[in-house]
This record gives sequence, structure tokens and C-alpha cells, in this order.
Amino acid sequence: MRELKVGLAGLGTVGTGVLRMLDRQRLSLAARTGCEIRVVAVSARDRARDRGVDLSAMRWHDDPVALARDPEIDVLLELMGGEGDPAKAAVCAALDAGKSVVTANKALLARCGTDLAARSEAAGGRLRFEAAVAGGIPIVKTLREALAGNTIHRVSGILNGTCNYILTRMADEKLSFETCLAEAQRLGYAEADPTFDIDGFDTAHKLALLTSLAFGTRVDAEAIYVEGIRSLTLADLAAADDLGYKVKLLGVAVRTDQGIEQRVHPTMVPKHWPIAQVSGVTNAVAIDGDAVALTLVGPGAGGDATASAVVADLADLALEAGGFAFGLPEAGLRPAERAPMQHHEGGYYIRLAARNKPGTAATIARRMADEGISLESIVQRRPDRSQDGEPATVILITYATTEEAVRRAVARMEGDGVLASQPQVIRIEKD
Amino acid sequence: MRELKVGLAGLGTVGTGVLRMLDRQRLSLAARTGCEIRVVAVSARDRARDRGVDLSAMRWHDDPVALARDPEIDVLLELMGGEGDPAKAAVCAALDAGKSVVTANKALLARCGTDLAARSEAAGGRLRFEAAVAGGIPIVKTLREALAGNTIHRVSGILNGTCNYILTRMADEKLSFETCLAEAQRLGYAEADPTFDIDGFDTAHKLALLTSLAFGTRVDAEAIYVEGIRSLTLADLAAADDLGYKVKLLGVAVRTDQGIEQRVHPTMVPKHWPIAQVSGVTNAVAIDGDAVALTLVGPGAGGDATASAVVADLADLALEAGGFAFGLPEAGLRPAERAPMQHHEGGYYIRLAARNKPGTAATIARRMADEGISLESIVQRRPDRSQDGEPATVILITYATTEEAVRRAVARMEGDGVLASQPQVIRIEKD
Repeated sequence: MRELKVGLAGLGTVGTGVLRMLDRQRLSLAARTGCEIRVVAVSARDRARDRGVDLSAMRWHDDPVALARDPEIDVLLELMGGEGDPAKAAVCAALDAGKSVVTANKALLARCGTDLAARSEAAGGRLRFEAAVAGGIPIVKTLREALAGNTIHRVSGILNGTCNYILTRMADEKLSFETCLAEAQRLGYAEADPTFDIDGFDTAHKLALLTSLAFGTRVDAEAIYVEGIRSLTLADLAAADDLGYKVKLLGVAVRTDQGIEQRVHPTMVPKHWPIAQVSGVTNAVAIDGDAVALTLVGPGAGGDATASAVVADLADLALEAGGFAFGLPEAGLRPAERAPMQHHEGGYYIRLAARNKPGTAATIARRMADEGISLESIVQRRPDRSQDGEPATVILITYATTEEAVRRAVARMEGDGVLASQPQVIRIEKD
Repeated sequence: MRELKVGLAGLGTVGTGVLRMLDRQRLSLAARTGCEIRVVAVSARDRARDRGVDLSAMRWHDDPVALARDPEIDVLLELMGGEGDPAKAAVCAALDAGKSVVTANKALLARCGTDLAARSEAAGGRLRFEAAVAGGIPIVKTLREALAGNTIHRVSGILNGTCNYILTRMADEKLSFETCLAEAQRLGYAEADPTFDIDGFDTAHKLALLTSLAFGTRVDAEAIYVEGIRSLTLADLAAADDLGYKVKLLGVAVRTDQGIEQRVHPTMVPKHWPIAQVSGVTNAVAIDGDAVALTLVGPGAGGDATASAVVADLADLALEAGGFAFGLPEAGLRPAERAPMQHHEGGYYIRLAARNKPGTAATIARRMADEGISLESIVQRRPDRSQDGEPATVILITYATTEEAVRRAVARMEGDGVLASQPQVIRIEKD
């Protein structure tokens, strides 16, 4: 029987999960692919640590780059993470040597995915990264293979389980952002330093890869507008609920007349959308093609889910499945024309803390009108026991308008001195 | 550039849709696969009919079997449908000649899919059928490739858009089954003779294929317990809603201690399940694996969606992607051990029309107790203006019990003469 010899760099939860899964499914995988997938060499930081898996039959490398260059291996499985070295050096070394690479490293791919694809093509290896986006959801395969007959207009998703967990608990249990974040940290869903997740950067990395797969463009993470969930309050979630929406942190990439819009921000989505129903750490991706609209829902993280994606990539390599890393050959990936965020069009939710003084309502209404923004609704709630000087909450829902009009209107109101604090702006997605 | 030469049998909505999609995506598909996908020959019933596509460059065959044997073609694309000849003869002729086959023909595959897989392996061609199950949802690829590292425990889905359309309208608009069926027929969602859809046979064909893909078993459509949606009333849907459920026609395949349970029937599913939210003609499939649980939602029928699945299969062939029709080689597909429906375990909803006479309630309660069935709830509703002799509606919700216990209890009540009409029994799926 043919063999696919794998060198595994990184023996954390996912790495050991992959070893266990390959062991558990050995016969099935061999029958499916006509090939035995064998991990023949490994590399990790600490050789002495007991990981509960038997590594005795595998060659040990202290240096992942040496592992990548090991002439015995056909595939480097990179599960170290990190956008720089040693992950990058190891991946490049393997690709340049004509080996294939399977990786879950979204940060690295978001930074230099196009270059890595070019290297793989130049030397004849393959680059696979199903686990890098939405964990166990086979979204890379779906975009690259299953929708090959479609022109994609839009791809969007809940790509970060930590944020979705926090937003779900806030909405369902009326708990503050801080409480839910602490709970997420306690349960291991959030890092001690949660910045990367809750400020939207993790979602942006994944979105950059989805954009490239969906639109056949070069990976361009820097073009992404990124806003996280820190500023969301229970008042915002309650207002969204009243209006028939849920608030989700979405990554969205859309083909517009002006180019490709890539954005990550809290978004109000209609409750009846499948994606609105996705709760907890679960991820979901929605794709709008000219022939098919799909929604895929599943686990976005965790050792088992990530291992499942990695093993599927290895099985494809064992089957000698062809196809380019991002669907098209690297030379065919076009630079993504960036549609500037200022030109984004859509409805907006705007929550203002309006100073309780004569003329405030008129000023707010005038600033909106000056920018040509039509209002679908205005709700003003006075504090329960109205006191002079205490601000009133005003919630505006706009008809479709542009980001720049909203920003200008809000900036003017701030200049007018009618606002008691920073306004909250949440974009609305609709049918 | 390499060429993949296709012979297309069947020029209905899907066939012409495929021709248009291949034309529209010609450059993209060639770049993705390094291969030009060309339809070089066609066959259909009526040569003269204007189908709005240019067939002048394609050789015409009156006989689809002759098309299948055409030495010029690499792939037969079978879009005629029907479980017998000429579809079967054409598919067999192509496979036996070592050609690959792409088909949307679920009836044929449900009847002899294992045999066709064996023929394809014997002669070296490939058999692909993404379009045969859930239309534009890439569920075949997902089970066969993306979840290769999983042991699947359960696969279930809304696999018939006609039924889901009818159930959605009944529930949302309180319209009768007959009214909704007529509307589905008017809109082209249901055939003039709707038996095949609404009595569950179409769902069963698709389920048979999913079962084989999920569990590595030989296709065994005859093992499926099938029940359609004709008997559902607005009272049932309203009661389900009160209890926190939606009623869906599901195809379900589960691995149990006794073998594989395959069943198609109206099912009460908790409202918060992603599959419960799927409305109208949309399809959905949920897969529970040991590493990953996924739900895929998308269009189950229609020319574009089906064409999208067909073109994806052709693109895979153009990439020379390997892999067996049902994941495993035919010789590795085990006979499915049939778990008998009588042994099905779960909760039940039972609606009875109880004769309004002394002792009825006691009789009903005793018959349930005799079978060891515990009740979660009993709701009895008397008709608005109670008349002697007019039956009362009694709704029983059971804790987990067995199909045979329920059937026996209900049969006894019928024998007791306490029921005024046929009881309604709906199975409940829970977390």
C-alpha cells in the first residue's frame, strides 16, 4: 500500500488529537484512500512532557525547520501557530522542498497565504488549511470545490466562538460583557489576554482566507475594516431584540461595484436568518452564490473539531486530490480591489446619549437630514426618574445610507455638544 | 490543456442549466482544474425542441445508451432520471466501458447504487452523485471527504422541499394540508401526482444514499421505514408549537446497538435546533460525528442548485480527484444490519379522539401503563360546545419508550372501543 509520511510540528491539544484520530481511524482511512497515513517524525518545544500518546515510533526534531526538511516526510503538518518563525520558516522550508503542507495557522496564512500558495505551486507540493477557518466546518473545501460552478457574491460568518459565546450569554441572561468574558476565560473559551478574539482580529484572519477563496483574489488581510465587541451593552442587545434582530460579530466579504468590501464588526441580523440562531461557541458561515446559497453550522474550535479538519486534508493528500490552495492558481488570483469602508451602504442602528436640554432632538434630526439619512424609527427613552442634566437614550434606525454619511452626522452631533457620551453605531444586515 | 469530454443525457431544466453554467464559468473552471470541461455529445427525447441553448457543436444521439458508449466521451452525465431503463442501461454501459458517470438520479442509486459503485471500480471509472441528495447542499462531498476522520453516529435531514414547504405554510398560516399542497402544485414545487414527495419516498431514496455514505454500508433503501405527511393536521402543528417543537418530515439514520435504524416520518424537533428553523423549500442535513456535529442548510432542488452540484462533480473529475463513490471501496461496504422499527426508542406525541363516555380516560391511562409507558404530559380538550357523543381530543406526550409499546397500547385502545377515529402518532427527537 502507498504511504503518506507526515512530519508533525506542534504537539498541543490539536496535534495529539490528530495522532489519536489517525490511530482510531487507521483502517477506515487506509480503505478510503488506498494509502496509509503515517506520522513518522514530530517536533515540539518540550520533548520530556507526557502527552498521553506514544511517540516512540516517530523521529524527534527539536527544530521544526529540520523536521520540515526531513527527507523522509511527504507532508509537513504545522500546528504550532504564530504568524512568524518558526512556523513560517518551517512551512516555507517544506514547500520549497516540494513537500505538501497542512496547517491550521490562520495568522500566517492571512499574512502571507498568497506567497505560500506560490511556493507550493513552484515546487510541486500542495498547501491545505481546512482547519484554519471555522474549525470543523468544511468551508474551505466547500468554497474551493463544491461551489466551483458558482460566482460568489457574499460570504459572511460567525468565525469566533469566544465572541459568540459572550454575545449569546449577554443576550440570553442579561449579563454584562465583563461578566461573560470572565466566564469565557474560566471555561477556557477565552485567553487571559482576550484582545485577539474580542477585538475582531481572529475573525479578520479567517475572513481574509474566505475572501480569497470566494472571490479568487490575493489574500489581503490589511484591507479589512475591524471592530470588536467590547463596546456592546445590554441596552444594545435589548434594543436589537425589540427590533427583531440578534447582534453577532460577523466577518463579511461582499463583491460591490467598487470592489471587495471586507469587514468585521458587530452586526444586527434578522432573527429568522439561520446565522442568527447560532449560539454559544458554535460557528457558522453563509455563502451567497449565483446558483446556490448555503449556510454551514458547526464547531469553530476545539481539539476534536480541528483534528477532524486536519485529518480530512491529510486524507485528500493521501488520495492525491488536486486543486490549488485558494482554488485558482496563484498567478490567477487577482489583487482585491478594496471597496473603502466609508462607501459601505446599509442600515444603521445608532444609540445616542442625548443631553437633556432644549433643542437637542431638533439638532439630532437636522444632522441626520443634512446628510440625507432617512430614519426608519426613532425611539427616545427618558431615564426612569427624570433628572435635569441626565441624558436620554435615543435610538435611531436608518434606512440604507452610507458609512461616511453616518460618521459625519454623528461627528457633527458631537461637535454640537448635544451628546453626553460616545455614540454607539451598529450596522444592520437585511434580506 | 487537458480536456474532459462529457456526454449529456437529458436536456431538461437541469441539463440546460448545466450547459449554461459550464459556458458561464468556462475560464474559471479551466483555471481551477487545468482542464477544459466540454460537452461533446447529447441525448434527449425530442431533438427538435428549442431549449434556448446552442447544441450545434455537440453530436446528437437519439439513444442514451449509444451516447454512453460513444468512444469520444470520458464522462456520462445522466440527467434523465427514473430507476429503470434507459437511465440504468446508459449508466451501466458507461461504467462498464470504463467511463465515469455523474448523475442526479437518486431513484436509480437507491435501488442499485452499490452495484453501480462496483461496476465503476471494476472498469476504472468514477461514479459521482452530489446532485442526487439535497440538491445544492454539498452533503455527499462532506460525508465522503470532509468527515473522513469521524465515526458518524447519526445523519438526519429535511430532504424534500415540497413537504417542508407544505409544513411551513400550514404552521405559519394555519392553512390545511390540502390548501398548501394545491399551492405547492400551483408554484411548481409539487407534481400533479404528489405521492412520491408527500408520502416520503423521495426522502427515503436520498436517505438511503446518506446512510451508506455515513456508515460505510451497502445501499439498502428497502430497510427504510417510511411514513409521509398526509395525516398531519393543524391541531398537531399547533400542539407541537405549544410544546416547543416544530414538525418536520425528517429522514433519519442512526447507529444503534441493534444495527442501523433508517426511517422517514414526521418528527417533532425542538424549536432551537438549527434544523427546526429551516422553512419553505429549503433543505438541511445534520450530521453527528464523534469529532464534529455539522448542519448544512441550502436549496434542495431547482435547476441552478442541481446544476451547481453537477458542475462540482465534473470539476472534481477534471481535477482527477480520487475517492470511491460511497467513500469506501465497494467490497468494504458492509451489509447494513437493520434495526427494526419496532425497537425504535424515543418520545412520542399521541393524539386521540376519545369517546365521551365514562371510563374512557381510565382505559387510556391503563393501556399506556400496561405497556410500561410513562407520560410526560396529558392534555384533554373538550369540544367548545360539549355534546354527548362528540369525542374529546386527548394529547399524550410520552417519556422515552419503544415503537412497539406505543403501537400495542394504541391498538388495545382501538380494540377497547374508546377511540372515535384513527389515532395520530408523531415521533419526537430530543437533545
